[in-house]
Amino acid sequence: MTELDTSGDTHVFDDGTHVFDDAVSLLAVDAHRYTGRTHPAYANMVGPFGGITAATLLRAVQQHPEVLGEPLSFTINYCGPVSYGEFEIVARPVRTNRSTQHWSIELSQDGTVSTTATAVFGTRRETWSSTEAVAPDAPPAQDVAPHTLPDFITWSRNYEMRFVQGAVPGPETGESPDSTTTLWVRDTPPRPLDFAALTSLCDVFFPRVFLRRGQYMPAGTVSLTVYFHADADALGRQSDAAVLGTARSQRFGKGYFDQTAELWGSDGELLATTHQLVYFKG
Amino acid sequence: MTELDTSGDTHVFDDGTHVFDDAVSLLAVDAHRYTGRTHPAYANMVGPFGGITAATLLRAVQQHPEVLGEPLSFTINYCGPVSYGEFEIVARPVRTNRSTQHWSIELSQDGTVSTTATAVFGTRRETWSSTEAVAPDAPPAQDVAPHTLPDFITWSRNYEMRFVQGAVPGPETGESPDSTTTLWVRDTPPRPLDFAALTSLCDVFFPRVFLRRGQYMPAGTVSLTVYFHADADALGRQSDAAVLGTARSQRFGKGYFDQTAELWGSDGELLATTHQLVYFKG
Repeated sequence: MTELDTSGDTHVFDDGTHVFDDAVSLLAVDAHRYTGRTHPAYANMVGPFGGITAATLLRAVQQHPEVLGEPLSFTINYCGPVSYGEFEIVARPVRTNRSTQHWSIELSQDGTVSTTATAVFGTRRETWSSTEAVAPDAPPAQDVAPHTLPDFITWSRNYEMRFVQGAVPGPETGESPDSTTTLWVRDTPPRPLDFAALTSLCDVFFPRVFLRRGQYMPAGTVSLTVYFHADADALGRQSDAAVLGTARSQRFGKGYFDQTAELWGSDGELLATTHQLVYFKG
Repeated sequence: MTELDTSGDTHVFDDGTHVFDDAVSLLAVDAHRYTGRTHPAYANMVGPFGGITAATLLRAVQQHPEVLGEPLSFTINYCGPVSYGEFEIVARPVRTNRSTQHWSIELSQDGTVSTTATAVFGTRRETWSSTEAVAPDAPPAQDVAPHTLPDFITWSRNYEMRFVQGAVPGPETGESPDSTTTLWVRDTPPRPLDFAALTSLCDVFFPRVFLRRGQYMPAGTVSLTVYFHADADALGRQSDAAVLGTARSQRFGKGYFDQTAELWGSDGELLATTHQLVYFKG
């Protein structure tokens, strides 16, 4: 781990490493086994931000010597809290076909599994294409004021968030009939988008129940799925510009709700669709 | 396996077993290991219908002696075709918490993994609740004519499908700008809904690219996720009435597209939301 330069407020390192890269860095123990360490800059209420854990598991596959192509889909299950400190990831290529490859991944600490995931990687080829979803209406990113989340949400300091609709509720917000949040979001300091960073962005939408109830309450992602529509070329075009994200829920009840989201590139390309099941109390 | 009564067109067995139960039946080898056999009634173009495979993997968890509560979320990855014949399923409880339990599941044949899955099970408790999604407009099921899919889609004969919008394309259908299909669907012969049957129903939506292009083409689900909103009581209320399903895609391109769907109970309760990534050629 690179030492954090605490002389300023931004996470810039003497060696030029971005805090995100530092947070998802892994050491290969053998072909399938990696070790890493939680990063204080991505701390959440209990354990690290789910997005950074997801990015780290995806990164394990990307670092694997046998990886085939680019990520197509990824599902992560948060089985229990990750403790701050060291962890081990085992990434196993379960099956490799001509153009697709299936992965099983587990993160454990002291022999206890806290996170499981599956991923599909593969090569893409030109086909008929069409984007049927429509991007939400939003002014350009630079016309929307950045919004700072409460200080205790440490990880959020690594993201520049400009809320177009449905910002985190304040003391006077009250209940809302609509769970939709739309925001421009990117890493801060800016960093060219890659698959790991896009995966992490899929989890920046705070639990929709906060918006509906107008208050914070205990809640956490149980399972998160990402479908990658962007290939490496699309990510290259996006570079470090802000991504337009929009998220909403379908149903809340009996301790759980779902949320579904879209991440749009600054040029109107749908980069990823993502879904999650969230536990809540209240 | 129960012998199929081929004297008639419906799948009814001498012993009263529904063909669905026959198809998902498993024999426990030990605590984690089950054997089963593909059922000819649920054959698809290459291997069995993905929905029946998903239901069978979920059933393995449900039969496990250590299972906790009801399914909350489920993701299955179709790594390669399942060959007709015997298969083995290993269902492993990776982590059991106070109210949730995480599972890893693999289906293999002759030592080759063809399907992986993860599932979250758990107990539910009363909380604030709200359904924010809105059911699609549809006349009552009995006012919509049943529609038979082409004979070569063997598995579809086990479902009564009444298309409200976006039926499978015929030779004269042509392209469509909208990938939405809405249909009333239930098992035929009718069978009270349970979690396994609901899981299978999540995969009855034919590939959306057929609708957009107005033709069949090679396509298959790569990864399917189900979020269960219904608990056992809700399934009991639904019993064997038709479910209102609606599915659409967000983006098609470079060999893959996603589809997202909702399954609504006959009384307007959202039973499940489901998402998949689909491979296609064309």
